[in-house]
Amino acid sequence: MTSVLITGGTVTTASEQYVADVFLDDGVIVQIGANLQVAADTVVQAEGQYVIPGGIDVHTHLGETVFRTITADSWESGTVAAAFGGTTTVVDFARQEREGMSPIEAIEHRRRQAESQAVIDYGFHLMATNLDSQEYLEELAALPGEGVTSFKLLMAYPGTMMVDDLTIFRAMQVAADTNAIVTLHAENGHVIQQITDQFAAAGRVQEHMHMHAHPHLVEGEATHRGIAMAEMAGSAVYIVHLSSRTALTEVEAAKARGQAVYAETCPQYLFAAYEDYENAGFEAAKYICSPPIRERANQDELWRGIETGALSVIATDHCTFRMQDDLAELPPQKPMGKGDFRYIPNGVPGVENRMHLMYQGGVVEGRYDMMRFVDLNCTMPAKLFGLYPRKGIIAIGADADVVVWDPNADYTIEAATHHMRVDYNLYEGMQVSGRPSTVISRGEIIVSGEEFLGQIGRGQYIRRSTPYVLDHPQSVTAR
Amino acid sequence: MTSVLITGGTVTTASEQYVADVFLDDGVIVQIGANLQVAADTVVQAEGQYVIPGGIDVHTHLGETVFRTITADSWESGTVAAAFGGTTTVVDFARQEREGMSPIEAIEHRRRQAESQAVIDYGFHLMATNLDSQEYLEELAALPGEGVTSFKLLMAYPGTMMVDDLTIFRAMQVAADTNAIVTLHAENGHVIQQITDQFAAAGRVQEHMHMHAHPHLVEGEATHRGIAMAEMAGSAVYIVHLSSRTALTEVEAAKARGQAVYAETCPQYLFAAYEDYENAGFEAAKYICSPPIRERANQDELWRGIETGALSVIATDHCTFRMQDDLAELPPQKPMGKGDFRYIPNGVPGVENRMHLMYQGGVVEGRYDMMRFVDLNCTMPAKLFGLYPRKGIIAIGADADVVVWDPNADYTIEAATHHMRVDYNLYEGMQVSGRPSTVISRGEIIVSGEEFLGQIGRGQYIRRSTPYVLDHPQSVTAR
Amino acid sequence: MTSVLITGGTVTTASEQYVADVFLDDGVIVQIGANLQVAADTVVQAEGQYVIPGGIDVHTHLGETVFRTITADSWESGTVAAAFGGTTTVVDFARQEREGMSPIEAIEHRRRQAESQAVIDYGFHLMATNLDSQEYLEELAALPGEGVTSFKLLMAYPGTMMVDDLTIFRAMQVAADTNAIVTLHAENGHVIQQITDQFAAAGRVQEHMHMHAHPHLVEGEATHRGIAMAEMAGSAVYIVHLSSRTALTEVEAAKARGQAVYAETCPQYLFAAYEDYENAGFEAAKYICSPPIRERANQDELWRGIETGALSVIATDHCTFRMQDDLAELPPQKPMGKGDFRYIPNGVPGVENRMHLMYQGGVVEGRYDMMRFVDLNCTMPAKLFGLYPRKGIIAIGADADVVVWDPNADYTIEAATHHMRVDYNLYEGMQVSGRPSTVISRGEIIVSGEEFLGQIGRGQYIRRSTPYVLDHPQSVTAR
Amino acid sequence: MTSVLITGGTVTTASEQYVADVFLDDGVIVQIGANLQVAADTVVQAEGQYVIPGGIDVHTHLGETVFRTITADSWESGTVAAAFGGTTTVVDFARQEREGMSPIEAIEHRRRQAESQAVIDYGFHLMATNLDSQEYLEELAALPGEGVTSFKLLMAYPGTMMVDDLTIFRAMQVAADTNAIVTLHAENGHVIQQITDQFAAAGRVQEHMHMHAHPHLVEGEATHRGIAMAEMAGSAVYIVHLSSRTALTEVEAAKARGQAVYAETCPQYLFAAYEDYENAGFEAAKYICSPPIRERANQDELWRGIETGALSVIATDHCTFRMQDDLAELPPQKPMGKGDFRYIPNGVPGVENRMHLMYQGGVVEGRYDMMRFVDLNCTMPAKLFGLYPRKGIIAIGADADVVVWDPNADYTIEAATHHMRVDYNLYEGMQVSGRPSTVISRGEIIVSGEEFLGQIGRGQYIRRSTPYVLDHPQSVTAR
Repeated sequence: MTSVLITGGTVTTASEQYVADVFLDDGVIVQIGANLQVAADTVVQAEGQYVIPGGIDVHTHLGETVFRTITADSWESGTVAAAFGGTTTVVDFARQEREGMSPIEAIEHRRRQAESQAVIDYGFHLMATNLDSQEYLEELAALPGEGVTSFKLLMAYPGTMMVDDLTIFRAMQVAADTNAIVTLHAENGHVIQQITDQFAAAGRVQEHMHMHAHPHLVEGEATHRGIAMAEMAGSAVYIVHLSSRTALTEVEAAKARGQAVYAETCPQYLFAAYEDYENAGFEAAKYICSPPIRERANQDELWRGIETGALSVIATDHCTFRMQDDLAELPPQKPMGKGDFRYIPNGVPGVENRMHLMYQGGVVEGRYDMMRFVDLNCTMPAKLFGLYPRKGIIAIGADADVVVWDPNADYTIEAATHHMRVDYNLYEGMQVSGRPSTVISRGEIIVSGEEFLGQIGRGQYIRRSTPYVLDHPQSVTAR
Repeated sequence: MTSVLITGGTVTTASEQYVADVFLDDGVIVQIGANLQVAADTVVQAEGQYVIPGGIDVHTHLGETVFRTITADSWESGTVAAAFGGTTTVVDFARQEREGMSPIEAIEHRRRQAESQAVIDYGFHLMATNLDSQEYLEELAALPGEGVTSFKLLMAYPGTMMVDDLTIFRAMQVAADTNAIVTLHAENGHVIQQITDQFAAAGRVQEHMHMHAHPHLVEGEATHRGIAMAEMAGSAVYIVHLSSRTALTEVEAAKARGQAVYAETCPQYLFAAYEDYENAGFEAAKYICSPPIRERANQDELWRGIETGALSVIATDHCTFRMQDDLAELPPQKPMGKGDFRYIPNGVPGVENRMHLMYQGGVVEGRYDMMRFVDLNCTMPAKLFGLYPRKGIIAIGADADVVVWDPNADYTIEAATHHMRVDYNLYEGMQVSGRPSTVISRGEIIVSGEEFLGQIGRGQYIRRSTPYVLDHPQSVTAR
Repeated sequence: MTSVLITGGTVTTASEQYVADVFLDDGVIVQIGANLQVAADTVVQAEGQYVIPGGIDVHTHLGETVFRTITADSWESGTVAAAFGGTTTVVDFARQEREGMSPIEAIEHRRRQAESQAVIDYGFHLMATNLDSQEYLEELAALPGEGVTSFKLLMAYPGTMMVDDLTIFRAMQVAADTNAIVTLHAENGHVIQQITDQFAAAGRVQEHMHMHAHPHLVEGEATHRGIAMAEMAGSAVYIVHLSSRTALTEVEAAKARGQAVYAETCPQYLFAAYEDYENAGFEAAKYICSPPIRERANQDELWRGIETGALSVIATDHCTFRMQDDLAELPPQKPMGKGDFRYIPNGVPGVENRMHLMYQGGVVEGRYDMMRFVDLNCTMPAKLFGLYPRKGIIAIGADADVVVWDPNADYTIEAATHHMRVDYNLYEGMQVSGRPSTVISRGEIIVSGEEFLGQIGRGQYIRRSTPYVLDHPQSVTAR
Repeated sequence: MTSVLITGGTVTTASEQYVADVFLDDGVIVQIGANLQVAADTVVQAEGQYVIPGGIDVHTHLGETVFRTITADSWESGTVAAAFGGTTTVVDFARQEREGMSPIEAIEHRRRQAESQAVIDYGFHLMATNLDSQEYLEELAALPGEGVTSFKLLMAYPGTMMVDDLTIFRAMQVAADTNAIVTLHAENGHVIQQITDQFAAAGRVQEHMHMHAHPHLVEGEATHRGIAMAEMAGSAVYIVHLSSRTALTEVEAAKARGQAVYAETCPQYLFAAYEDYENAGFEAAKYICSPPIRERANQDELWRGIETGALSVIATDHCTFRMQDDLAELPPQKPMGKGDFRYIPNGVPGVENRMHLMYQGGVVEGRYDMMRFVDLNCTMPAKLFGLYPRKGIIAIGADADVVVWDPNADYTIEAATHHMRVDYNLYEGMQVSGRPSTVISRGEIIVSGEEFLGQIGRGQYIRRSTPYVLDHPQSVTAR
């Protein structure tokens, strides 16, 4: 492999910042210093720019069959878009998609999908929908040894992906025994169902009513329940796409007790709001995801959670569906539910703009500094999901996943130029300051300015190691 | 009817105490005053004693078919025992006992059972196990108009009585619409099931292990969930037999927010403890009920909850099963699960000793005064379950359910002399100070000292009115 | 003395309501019943009206020398106004007004002032400003035995009435030893002083700036401090005129721990708001009191505190100063600080309208029921300040302080007709429903409709007994 | 200057760990890499050892005149001892020691004391005891520009160092205006005084009674007060030597609100306990410091606070007084108060053992990892007190303050061999694993194994920059 010397940038990790040259060789970081005198195949001049670890997005849905369609972004388009945004690793999902699919089969199925397409590295959370048999439980227990160290369960979507508390508790016990981490979609699906049915009976199913079917407390309740069960099982737990201040309060309380509880939020909950789509008719479909994008006043609470450390990670829940029904190779998507939110696929795009937005909202607007930006987008995702110390840091011996971030480059977010295969962008027209100028994956420059230089399929599957979490509390059960 | 004059006692209500004569006529209280000059058929001299409202026990299980047997106390034995303890009204349960039994049928079934036997007045909570059909929901909505203003749901006992969140939420919505109150057995049945199954797999099912299968948090979690759902449905909610400090914390938080949340605890959680049966072998079966009787350190937290007002009511969850298998007319009971707690019917006796214990632990031991004793045992139960202003108070025009309580009479609790049809008493040998000397139901003296004077079947079914609760919060759902 | 029979009213206590006749004789309540057949000197027909205990206002400042003037309402005008509002007892203050005045002298001084003027019964809190000597501490310890069972201390007004923590802690220890209760004006006077000085330096001393000199947290801080010191001293503590949600939170937390902590709020914090005087120029002086009347959004929090029981008592902090300088016998008052809030005497009128307002805002507007109205305004004040069981209740043998409250009488609050000797009313023009039709003090009708029938000076000094509070926690100090 | 190459160690920062060589030249870190090929004057082989930033102890009292004596450790002995423990910077105090000493004079006075003696770098917190004049306030405001960016105030020790709330609030306002941070000794001195006086009156002043004179709540109260005042002033605040769970709770609550609140604890609160000296007679004097060393059960709460991040820094409050009165050059110290804790100088030794203990208790015993160890002892102290980015990190361009930490070296703590000039050690005989093998200050090896290589007086005064804290909340006062 070739070598790269990045000169004069401000190296930024989760805990320090300093000006230095960084030398990459054979896919790893080998030297950091003042005025390094090394021969490199390529030199990237980074004066006035930040040199940070490649971003890690631990919540994407690429090429996934779901909601009676398939997500618009394939592994190819999705990972290319990620790379343009400064993200060099994704952790996506492998779901027991149909009856009879075991946990291991689910992983194998998704690995086959990704391997010829991905341009950056990737891993999978196992998304369990059925753990009724001893056999499946045993497969689950085997997964961490195979590099799948996180299990996802959904407390919402009854009838399809929702599992009951028995299944969740069983998965948490397996996680506790194998040092894996459980991630939860925390919404009470039954309450949502009842409210939704009543809306339907009253003819109140216009697009924007989606939010009203998901009150804050369905999320707060499920978050509390998930945390309580994790405490009883003795496992670490991670709340995905936390959207509501009520859920945040539960996470804060658990962290204060010293429990191994973590949470992510997503840019759509920080930069979009119900007020944006309340009166938008079918355009509101762009914003439909679960948990819903909530009222603007809620945003401040989530920002506060980021500032205090209650929220540990920014991920995207990138799950794209097109507004137009115009691509031959894709079935209809958002239009399936025109006029009736119950039939609109849930999901919004985000993988490409995560770091643009979090730099703008955090660093430019003064909510946090560049070290915290790195922590939220790179280091903590790596640590919590077993990618550290290989990824998520600027350190000798780590994978040379490095982004040169130009704080002075302005960028306008727009669907016309973004690389995601979806025909809208929630932040259309928004101007941000700062963007990657060079994106390097395992020592290879894959994005330089506007140009994509990587090869399709070059991404590698990553066997993840043990999550880096607070000591597991002891299970209350005397097993 | 005849009239009764009670002279010289210290009349005690939930808010005041004063020495006065009380005159009862035609089944109601008609006059209270200093040295009343009235002609009465009977005079009860109460100098040096308290004159209080008859006790109300809102949580009993008399003659109920449950746990593959029938509770040992029939309506006759149970209500006689209640009367001896100073209780003049019970609110028991009418359960949809079998598939196809509708809510109204459940009520009618239980009324028929009670009417020829009860010696004191009674009502029923509807215990719903199936609300899947529109027809059942409509019957439920009709019940408050018929005097059944409380609905009970169980979050525990999967496979038999446990209902899912959808059913609970539906019942809460009906309660909100009809000003009824929902009562919850708040334990997460799925977690209990998984822990229990693991104990069984490990051969750890000795009697005392019952407690370990019910950790505090299964109760804390379910209490939080029930309160959250009630907030979303806009209904009042009442947690039955609260046993754990974790649940208490949830109730306190909800009350501080101003939500209409109430809770009862039971004497067994205040006066018995795990330490009493941990090493007792099969004798531990006497103590098995759900939630379990917990470690002694937990008692103080519950007492604190009583003192601060977080706990509003003392009830008994009286549900008796015999230790011996010696009555021809009763199937085997506690022995069904000898050596395996999974098969031991859950329940303990209590209806006769509630007021003995709460007087001793509260008034004699200095935790609260006589007014609070009246509030906990008489007035609040009446107000929360629609018996007020007919019962639960000493007031002109109220039912003449009156107890003359002798604070100086010592009493030894023992199975040999108690009136409950169960062959043990959790508090065997305990000496208490204070007991009823005279018990009057609707103007009729039914207990005088050791003698029962009432007629079997004299008890009346009470159509209850709207519970007296904090204004219902608005439902979050825009129905 | 003469006897009075009140017929057909709805007797309302803190815990029950019922229709009955009430017979008063020789200054006490002697009989309550249905259709009483007694010969009475006077009959008051109360059909359709409530019969409640006389109101008790435990926070007034009558004829007090303070703020370089004397309060406008004398003992005569103040107690007459109180009577018209349904209040039959006040607890006012006896302050160590000048150097060298001992606690006992302070009490004697104020008793002499009141005795020839008061038309209703009264007592005094000792307001301590100097406890530096052993002699004063001993006098303080002797006061409860003499019927003065509450001590007031101020954490605000440095240089005049503020005492340091040492003085407060000493008073609390004396209270703990003598079963008295400590009441606190809880604001951090030093922080107020510094902010005020800075406002003055910046020329920002217009009347409405008074509020900005008293941020919420100066009250929250002092409340927390007072509660903490009381916990360490082992005494009961009562926060007077609680005005801020931050202070309420502290009270709630302490009550949940089971500490003997109580608080009052005043109508001005519930019915007036900063928005009423923000742009009022000198008219803002009418609203100036400490703590300040705060922004309207704060009102809801206080109402919630009343509903949940965190606030136990409604009092007025009645402390009147005239806007006009037109009475020969009074020095100038509010005008002393025209244009500079630092020189405006702090205080607002209220004793006459307390029950009007709390009936309107509570019962008429549906926040609580008539029993809670009685509890807040009559029973709890009596219990917390040692007037119970003589006052504050409708009970055989209690003082015949009784109000017949007509719920259907409309009343317009206005300075032109009120009986307080102050030339404005904060609620000018406000229409309320409900007012007293007859006010009876110790069996004597002193107000009948618009007419005052009592004799000046008929009021009696009341030796108060031990406050009725939660068991004192043990002091942490091993004295 | 000479250069140093550290080879093969595990470089550990607050956020990452990796094996690398580290090259130091001209007093700074210049290169980090795999197998660096550089010519160095000295090579330190660090295989199997950690390479970490030099420790920073932000709470020491060296050569300070206090408690009617002078601390036993001079600047020379204290900094030598610090170096042996792996600490390369201390922040000590400059107090307005006597009437008429201004803030700037206090700093100059202490700089003169330190400059000829210190062997490591140092700075000063200004400890204000008098801010009554405009002149002193102006000097205070000038200090941050001169490199003194933290102000200390004491809420305890009335009559000597305690200041009132007015002084604290003024200092906080200055800090807010100048981006300095206020540090507080948070105990309510008045309550301590009253309890102490009562103990004295009762003859209960034996050494161990010191703890009883400082109940938890005096610390909890003062912590709450300090945080509230900081919120009102809009300044960052830092609680020194937090010792009690009650204070911890206040810090946690403030952090959850997003306030710029920080706290340190000290090893003596984690490794010593009241039980160690309760029955020790005069030996208890060794343990006397304020806040006191508390009961053992409190330790777990503090450890939890470290694990959750509520506590940010470990410092020592190193303040030494000898038990023997045997050094000609020192006045008597602990013996001054033999038999009467009131006269025992408050303080314990610690600067040498801080990192030994925190490595043992944290890393060896599994409470946290090596990165957190670095954060607590090096990086956070640097960031909060304006030493970052010059100190506290391993980064290109930072001061070459580097410690090679040998995790396998066992070490026995004992007074006979420690370098502190005090004749006892609280942890006498305790065996720990891990200690520094090489200590480097600005590129110079000052400790190698057991040998001290530095020159007396080589330490430099450090002008500190702006503390690195959460954005200051806006002051509530509209200055």
